[in-house]
Amino acid sequence: MKCYLGIDLGGTNVRVAKITEDGQILAQVKGPSYGQEGPAKVMANIKSMVREIPNWKECSGIGIGVPGPVDTKAGCMVLSTNLPGFAGYPFADEMSKEFGMPAYLDNDANVAALAEALVGAGKGLNYVFYTTISTGIGGCLVVDGKTVSGKHGFGGEVANIIIDRNREKINYLNVGAIENEASGTGLKRKYEKASGKTVKHTGVVFDLAEEGDEAAKAAVAEFERDLGQYFATIACVCDPDIFVLGGGMMKSADKFLPGVIEQYKSMSHTAVHDTPFVLAALEEPGIVGAAMLPKSQGQ
Amino acid sequence: MKCYLGIDLGGTNVRVAKITEDGQILAQVKGPSYGQEGPAKVMANIKSMVREIPNWKECSGIGIGVPGPVDTKAGCMVLSTNLPGFAGYPFADEMSKEFGMPAYLDNDANVAALAEALVGAGKGLNYVFYTTISTGIGGCLVVDGKTVSGKHGFGGEVANIIIDRNREKINYLNVGAIENEASGTGLKRKYEKASGKTVKHTGVVFDLAEEGDEAAKAAVAEFERDLGQYFATIACVCDPDIFVLGGGMMKSADKFLPGVIEQYKSMSHTAVHDTPFVLAALEEPGIVGAAMLPKSQGQ
Repeated sequence: MKCYLGIDLGGTNVRVAKITEDGQILAQVKGPSYGQEGPAKVMANIKSMVREIPNWKECSGIGIGVPGPVDTKAGCMVLSTNLPGFAGYPFADEMSKEFGMPAYLDNDANVAALAEALVGAGKGLNYVFYTTISTGIGGCLVVDGKTVSGKHGFGGEVANIIIDRNREKINYLNVGAIENEASGTGLKRKYEKASGKTVKHTGVVFDLAEEGDEAAKAAVAEFERDLGQYFATIACVCDPDIFVLGGGMMKSADKFLPGVIEQYKSMSHTAVHDTPFVLAALEEPGIVGAAMLPKSQGQ
Repeated sequence: MKCYLGIDLGGTNVRVAKITEDGQILAQVKGPSYGQEGPAKVMANIKSMVREIPNWKECSGIGIGVPGPVDTKAGCMVLSTNLPGFAGYPFADEMSKEFGMPAYLDNDANVAALAEALVGAGKGLNYVFYTTISTGIGGCLVVDGKTVSGKHGFGGEVANIIIDRNREKINYLNVGAIENEASGTGLKRKYEKASGKTVKHTGVVFDLAEEGDEAAKAAVAEFERDLGQYFATIACVCDPDIFVLGGGMMKSADKFLPGVIEQYKSMSHTAVHDTPFVLAALEEPGIVGAAMLPKSQGQ
């Protein structure tokens, strides 16, 4: 069976793994990424980690997942907030030359989407839309096993979609951007503001709503409606076979997902009501998805 | 050069043409579609029209564009408001058997998008997003030369995207749906309501705005902002290489498109500001796009 090298690079940590084409991790090396020390240090470290993988030469290609938007054609990052010096750096080219096999770069949310589309919850389906909801909100459309990364690598950068114009200005994102309104951070912020109380983490807001706290009930209701509208919008654009949901907030999915689906149905055509909302199936979509990049490119 | 049969079927008229793979119309037959008389009559009529096309047997496949959402895998219409009896009718299969070549069915907005992506304004680009604005609003994403028609044929049925929750309920669409707010019909309705006047057609509203009519200026400003937000939303989902714009409203494009683009930029990341907004290049995208369906499927 074919196998690939997957690299999951973050600002703090990096993982390198040898993974089969059906998503099984055969070997893995983890360590610090030295992300603040610049490309020379980061690249030298990754290269030595690849060489620690037994029989890495058997692999048919290299895939790398990185935070932020990626120019997938050029194989380089567009912005590199968490990895200084990497914007425009010829990441994929350098890896390809070093190891003598094709190398591909994509955004970490996009590779997670790819993993779910190829070997996870969306396996075998043509149109998979992945959304991750945690402190932020990200997403990616996968069509026929390829991520729609777009002209500038901003495909699936859904955080900035305006869900309601009549909200508070929070940060650089649009007023009413879905990430500010319906991320974990957003729900916690809005509950705390409305109630004057402070909660340890977002999960508490769902508990309080169940206990009858009026401010929590209102915050959760708005959260569900905002997400319902978000998914209805996505359905209008690409009518996916499945919505796959990942991210830290899914720990509380039983508390809000039925409400989100109800809202989704209230804002969409009857024909699309049967689109399934399914939790991500993979435990390690980041590293598996990175390894799926060469596969999705026919390697 | 390869050629294909394109069929553009509406509730009133139908056209059948023989078209080269680069979009040149070699022969064409037009006539009434008998759309209200049911599938038997409609199909018999189309079949005889195909046989009027000189050397139709030289074609490598048949593509059919129809109004409303289509199950492209099954090759049949999902809804058939303007063609009674066609919902679920095995349209593509019947044509394929009759003429001994592969046949494909898709929505008329989707085939127009396909035409622009393959041989029109988006030729050679990976991600083309087509939007048509006239009495209604439709659209379609084309990825690598294939329409993203979606699970239920509702991909690109963008009319129902909510642009602002705080609007009037107009019809079966969502409150604040883009089609009700920023179609030609929508702009005319909103101006007439605000001003208490009646205008002959939507174009007059742009003229009045130029002449300083305050209600017209406000209506056009809202129209531009609504469309700007719509395109910013699409960019978040798929970051296309190009926005291609068609439909009757494009006759007034010089009056509103600069304002729409300004609004788009105000609601999107700097990286995507250079995405071009280009008017549709083809005079007959409906019939040409229909003929491009077999080409997009590798025929």
